[in-house]
Amino acid sequence: MFYHIKELQHEAKPSCPDPIFARQLQEILGGQYGEISVALQYLFQGWNFRGAEKYRDLLMDVGTEELAHIEMLATMISRLLDGAPVGDQEKAAKDPMVGAVLGGMNPQHAIVSGLGAMPADSNGNRWTANYIGASGNLLADFRANLTAESQGRLQAVRLYEAASDPGVKDMLAFLIARDTMHQNMWKAAIAELEAQENIVVPSTFPKELEKRQVAYDFYNLSEGEESSKGRWAKGKSMDGLGSFKYYSQAPAYGTKPSLKPAPPYIHDTLPNIRSGSNQEPPHHE
Amino acid sequence: MFYHIKELQHEAKPSCPDPIFARQLQEILGGQYGEISVALQYLFQGWNFRGAEKYRDLLMDVGTEELAHIEMLATMISRLLDGAPVGDQEKAAKDPMVGAVLGGMNPQHAIVSGLGAMPADSNGNRWTANYIGASGNLLADFRANLTAESQGRLQAVRLYEAASDPGVKDMLAFLIARDTMHQNMWKAAIAELEAQENIVVPSTFPKELEKRQVAYDFYNLSEGEESSKGRWAKGKSMDGLGSFKYYSQAPAYGTKPSLKPAPPYIHDTLPNIRSGSNQEPPHHE
Amino acid sequence: MFYHIKELQHEAKPSCPDPIFARQLQEILGGQYGEISVALQYLFQGWNFRGAEKYRDLLMDVGTEELAHIEMLATMISRLLDGAPVGDQEKAAKDPMVGAVLGGMNPQHAIVSGLGAMPADSNGNRWTANYIGASGNLLADFRANLTAESQGRLQAVRLYEAASDPGVKDMLAFLIARDTMHQNMWKAAIAELEAQENIVVPSTFPKELEKRQVAYDFYNLSEGEESSKGRWAKGKSMDGLGSFKYYSQAPAYGTKPSLKPAPPYIHDTLPNIRSGSNQEPPHHE
Amino acid sequence: MFYHIKELQHEAKPSCPDPIFARQLQEILGGQYGEISVALQYLFQGWNFRGAEKYRDLLMDVGTEELAHIEMLATMISRLLDGAPVGDQEKAAKDPMVGAVLGGMNPQHAIVSGLGAMPADSNGNRWTANYIGASGNLLADFRANLTAESQGRLQAVRLYEAASDPGVKDMLAFLIARDTMHQNMWKAAIAELEAQENIVVPSTFPKELEKRQVAYDFYNLSEGEESSKGRWAKGKSMDGLGSFKYYSQAPAYGTKPSLKPAPPYIHDTLPNIRSGSNQEPPHHE
Amino acid sequence: MFYHIKELQHEAKPSCPDPIFARQLQEILGGQYGEISVALQYLFQGWNFRGAEKYRDLLMDVGTEELAHIEMLATMISRLLDGAPVGDQEKAAKDPMVGAVLGGMNPQHAIVSGLGAMPADSNGNRWTANYIGASGNLLADFRANLTAESQGRLQAVRLYEAASDPGVKDMLAFLIARDTMHQNMWKAAIAELEAQENIVVPSTFPKELEKRQVAYDFYNLSEGEESSKGRWAKGKSMDGLGSFKYYSQAPAYGTKPSLKPAPPYIHDTLPNIRSGSNQEPPHHE
Amino acid sequence: MFYHIKELQHEAKPSCPDPIFARQLQEILGGQYGEISVALQYLFQGWNFRGAEKYRDLLMDVGTEELAHIEMLATMISRLLDGAPVGDQEKAAKDPMVGAVLGGMNPQHAIVSGLGAMPADSNGNRWTANYIGASGNLLADFRANLTAESQGRLQAVRLYEAASDPGVKDMLAFLIARDTMHQNMWKAAIAELEAQENIVVPSTFPKELEKRQVAYDFYNLSEGEESSKGRWAKGKSMDGLGSFKYYSQAPAYGTKPSLKPAPPYIHDTLPNIRSGSNQEPPHHE
Repeated sequence: MFYHIKELQHEAKPSCPDPIFARQLQEILGGQYGEISVALQYLFQGWNFRGAEKYRDLLMDVGTEELAHIEMLATMISRLLDGAPVGDQEKAAKDPMVGAVLGGMNPQHAIVSGLGAMPADSNGNRWTANYIGASGNLLADFRANLTAESQGRLQAVRLYEAASDPGVKDMLAFLIARDTMHQNMWKAAIAELEAQENIVVPSTFPKELEKRQVAYDFYNLSEGEESSKGRWAKGKSMDGLGSFKYYSQAPAYGTKPSLKPAPPYIHDTLPNIRSGSNQEPPHHE
Repeated sequence: MFYHIKELQHEAKPSCPDPIFARQLQEILGGQYGEISVALQYLFQGWNFRGAEKYRDLLMDVGTEELAHIEMLATMISRLLDGAPVGDQEKAAKDPMVGAVLGGMNPQHAIVSGLGAMPADSNGNRWTANYIGASGNLLADFRANLTAESQGRLQAVRLYEAASDPGVKDMLAFLIARDTMHQNMWKAAIAELEAQENIVVPSTFPKELEKRQVAYDFYNLSEGEESSKGRWAKGKSMDGLGSFKYYSQAPAYGTKPSLKPAPPYIHDTLPNIRSGSNQEPPHHE
Repeated sequence: MFYHIKELQHEAKPSCPDPIFARQLQEILGGQYGEISVALQYLFQGWNFRGAEKYRDLLMDVGTEELAHIEMLATMISRLLDGAPVGDQEKAAKDPMVGAVLGGMNPQHAIVSGLGAMPADSNGNRWTANYIGASGNLLADFRANLTAESQGRLQAVRLYEAASDPGVKDMLAFLIARDTMHQNMWKAAIAELEAQENIVVPSTFPKELEKRQVAYDFYNLSEGEESSKGRWAKGKSMDGLGSFKYYSQAPAYGTKPSLKPAPPYIHDTLPNIRSGSNQEPPHHE
Repeated sequence: MFYHIKELQHEAKPSCPDPIFARQLQEILGGQYGEISVALQYLFQGWNFRGAEKYRDLLMDVGTEELAHIEMLATMISRLLDGAPVGDQEKAAKDPMVGAVLGGMNPQHAIVSGLGAMPADSNGNRWTANYIGASGNLLADFRANLTAESQGRLQAVRLYEAASDPGVKDMLAFLIARDTMHQNMWKAAIAELEAQENIVVPSTFPKELEKRQVAYDFYNLSEGEESSKGRWAKGKSMDGLGSFKYYSQAPAYGTKPSLKPAPPYIHDTLPNIRSGSNQEPPHHE
Repeated sequence: MFYHIKELQHEAKPSCPDPIFARQLQEILGGQYGEISVALQYLFQGWNFRGAEKYRDLLMDVGTEELAHIEMLATMISRLLDGAPVGDQEKAAKDPMVGAVLGGMNPQHAIVSGLGAMPADSNGNRWTANYIGASGNLLADFRANLTAESQGRLQAVRLYEAASDPGVKDMLAFLIARDTMHQNMWKAAIAELEAQENIVVPSTFPKELEKRQVAYDFYNLSEGEESSKGRWAKGKSMDGLGSFKYYSQAPAYGTKPSLKPAPPYIHDTLPNIRSGSNQEPPHHE
Repeated sequence: MFYHIKELQHEAKPSCPDPIFARQLQEILGGQYGEISVALQYLFQGWNFRGAEKYRDLLMDVGTEELAHIEMLATMISRLLDGAPVGDQEKAAKDPMVGAVLGGMNPQHAIVSGLGAMPADSNGNRWTANYIGASGNLLADFRANLTAESQGRLQAVRLYEAASDPGVKDMLAFLIARDTMHQNMWKAAIAELEAQENIVVPSTFPKELEKRQVAYDFYNLSEGEESSKGRWAKGKSMDGLGSFKYYSQAPAYGTKPSLKPAPPYIHDTLPNIRSGSNQEPPHHE
């Protein structure tokens, strides 16, 4: 169960409205790596977790904080939209600034949400749960969380660079710092797990069942051998259980596939065409 | 530019058809963490990379290998669908096995693809580029790649557990081993970058611009303090630049938000209702 | 800002696992009218609201309760999935019950979420913000909320009819009762607003600007006049400002449209074809 | 079966082209609450209706009218696109007006549809049936219809405010008036049903089966008690069968959930990690 | 404007209900190549057409017929769902037939639509306008239409093979025949256009502006030269303006791309890493 | 299996950056008829093909070429984005050119992809496999391929018209020429198949099973008889097996549908309301 308090986690007040920036800010509210994504990803991981309180509690703490971030961004976006213009070509022609705003803002911010934030990204794509995951395996999921915080902080930093308004920059500086913490935090949680599980997910699959002979091979499948110069191409593998091996020529272990014809009730291509026994048609239609 | 050779990277031949398993196998072909996702994610990262050949070459090598994995899975699925039944309740009633298959298979495998693999997951959701990312920042992207390989190997292992067919298990054992390599590989690439950039993405944002005072705080926002027992709640932060601090009571740094009324052309709720000056209506409609 | 407590709002314990029902229950968690939809719809309406505390507080109260419903359903679904089988045709053939379960369950519950709930509906379609709305106009939005609670309770009742398990029925009986309250509640809130605004949304558009002459006409556009027998076809209009009028023959007030040719840089169909001046081709290809 | 006549239901002629407004107008053609949504929602409700002709006929009449509205909007949009420019930065730089238009128009209107209307909203999101519903329960569905007409009229009014062109305003004035009628109409149809069913959907679920003890409680789950001032918090419930009761402190009726471990074939987190028996790793990686 | 008559274009009555087949039949109602797709594709092409009445009239005629096909399928599906069971594992276990039906039917047919047809495909994916197109160029669009009728008839035939019910087969036999007509019809319309435009779309792009030297080359980019045996690899090109030429070795006309670094405000990877000047990290983490 | 070489198939270098055009160019990379669509469509058709090498080889050759086109476009887009500005209203106001660019570019090109190409269209809609098909029936699929090349070349030509940059025009001229080839090629492949199968897909369905009596009828379902003037309305049918027949009045072969009531467990509308036996409510609420 949840309770809500009215205060924001951090202030969300721009100096003045800016509908163009409101549109851009939607990215970290309702985009692929926005706050809705992290909130629901962590909460679902927490609700689904089948084990010790410690990790579930961690997930619920951070998932609940992310709900507060959605709230801050929604508030900021609504304020950036204060008095946003509506209009057409005629209005745009009369005032170049109105024209620029009409071109750069999200028209749904006026027509659909009535100057409110939307659960959508900076192009107006509505948020979708395709963005998130909760697999039941903590190490796999914490890596997804570290990824989300890395991509999310990167986007917040780019928005910081784009912003001029001190109120906007102040709120972004807070969110960026929280992402610093969250990257550190997931990194720490991952370290805890890797110390016990080693690094390959899932750690519980018996090694003798996978094809060990290809488990540390690097296959060069594109022209040039620059990729041989990386840590991944030589030396002990990161899990300490093998050695990286670089293949300039990647082998094909399989054979040419050839599929059986479909049964008649599928009505694929005519058998004689499929079998290649057909003659070519004359060259003129 | 690409070239195609006819041999599969590894054999993809089941002992006998199994349309139920064909449906399940679609998950790692066209699902969120399937082979289409990793292929296009790595290729787009490679094409967009603005820097040294070494990383671009790495991305192109592995992206190109993943294309071969799509091919193996597509071939396997087509073969598992050989002679799959079509039918209705009447046919299901006559033969319990036909009934089980009709219930467990993807009907589009007969109606739409004519016994072929589809770019879709195990529930028939078509693949979408919402699943992938390429940010231009290598460390952020390599973390996304490690995540994808971790979730992908986990799913392949679960499918291995579900499978009875030796041919299917053989192919999965190959894919699982390649995912072992790819986790090791991204881990190595990440280690290379972190050795130079430290761990917080992006590393180039000036630290004095973020709110350092909250950059290492853990906020307890859910009942219970089990989360205080983790590495993330005490000691030096993982980036070595701060110390984790645990707050039993998370502070609210902001104030209660209050938004300005919308301008009249937005036609929101009536001003007197918005302002709360309206009287309550009588208790009967 | 939000806080989380560990207790569920109401118990969510089935007597025994049932992966088939787990799949069905996803509908009211992550479907069009599921708990994610109402939670985010109410919260976004609350965050965006530009007016008196009373309505914002109402929206935050109920939105926050819906987060607890997501939690209950996620917990119930995870428990219904306890020990769910994985498998293929061979396993299905050996045991009809396993076959029925494999046919009726969501394969992603095993492969993807590891026996956890997903943000998806009963067909595995991931939740999308296409399902929700927040327009800034309270009356429009409260109607959307009443709709969501009506459709949601209907689905919960249908699931109650499908269920055998007493623990499942107990939880559904709670959710159904809360939906009774929420329908009453939105109905009351709507009554408050309609008492001051009358019924047509938005109430602030000047009546002289719309085409009043067609504002109360019912146009019969399908064969038969059964629709003339309803309240909507005669008598005073519901807003009290007009009288319904039934037209057996619906008029066409406009003319035949004819569009100008596209400019050459659009490369539409050849001008002489567009103009119909082309001759017919001979009857044999 | 349907027949088509060439005359539009109402004229759809702008005074002059305006590609910026064409983009905005797409919202009420192919957006969440646009004409495609209402047309297909009403028609599906009509086709699926299992009962008396009166309601089916109503649904078919109005669904068929909405097809005519799609047609009017498509025509208007095509005309607003007459001669729309195509171009790049160089053209935008040479002429500020061309720049404003290129910024504010939907690029697909030139590249994809060749100056024609699209089944998409004002951000170019293609229409999806996620927007609509048909449940078989008339009262639930009529509420969805009233919602759609309320949101739809609100958007049309906002577009009216944005428009300068008299031809556009004239068509919008017609559509707004029809939405006035349709709100009145669904309101009347709802009144007919509520007079016989009371207000809670579905009316056929036995009241003794739901948890009556929580069916009229209002739970205060967010800070502050402003929500206690509404009609929904005191007095007789709107269905006349209970009394609203306000809880300042919302109770948690359930207990802390604790989930069973997943079986080994799911390959979740290691058992000793899950159980919390793991030691913390050393503080340095 | 449209009018609706109550009679179906053709009867849609099954001998007895069959919820499994109802699910499958959804494919040609709301799937990629279903009746919603063709109806809206033809109608949008008609509304957007900028030219002679003859083609617009053709498109409106056939688009309007497809609306009648949606209606027939919706009716048939509702009837196939008559009395469809709802239930869980317990019910499935008691009666194998109920189990088979629960496994093979779409659970949303009970929970969501109340035994009605849905605007969705056989996997419950909601219809989306991503499936359709209207480009303004008649020849391009008529080819899309011929494709849709070809894929659509193929799916209808596969469903005919799956069906046992004489009423279902009777309706499918009608739809299949109409698709025969529609393939003939679009073929005829295409022949008319090609007789005047030749075959390459768009026909209006000046030939000297494209790279004529590669306009008839076939590039062998996959192992083996079986593709050289087709009509497409030798002889006069189909447009009569060139000659096909087969290249065993496909040339690369371009050079290796190398992208400029991103500016600092984008916060991509560190410059020294990008440039490859970084040293490798030690082999142990 | 695939191999990658570093050279582009054709040069992809603009004279200078142009973020507005970069956004537009996304249409033919990641849009409905873009290069991702054709690449994956042809490759899936190839992998699924159950027959002679000749057609599979053809599909693999061309699918592999399309991968090279994705690569060229991704490279071009990244270069067009070189140094693209980020910013807000304040920056837009200071410099009209910056304003125009901010209005016309895709904000995700800065925030999300860091000046890289995205798997998305010109409105930022991510690519989805809803765009493509592979049915197992070659003739149906080759028609889909001809459609894709026709729509794709049309879009490339429109972009050519919009472009000023010689480097962009040069690359488009190459792609347009390749589309000329690919239209010729699919046309040739279709001719081969039609010469053996005749034109109606699928050719293997026994003619006596479809309703032959309606297989060549043209139904006039919209006002006016302009559609009678086409080749499709008279003369021998294109398959040579019948004669087109034009009906001014389209017959309705079916009867009015009437559906059975839903069973009680579905909780549809009350039986007495459904049956129309309800009285009208009084005219005042």
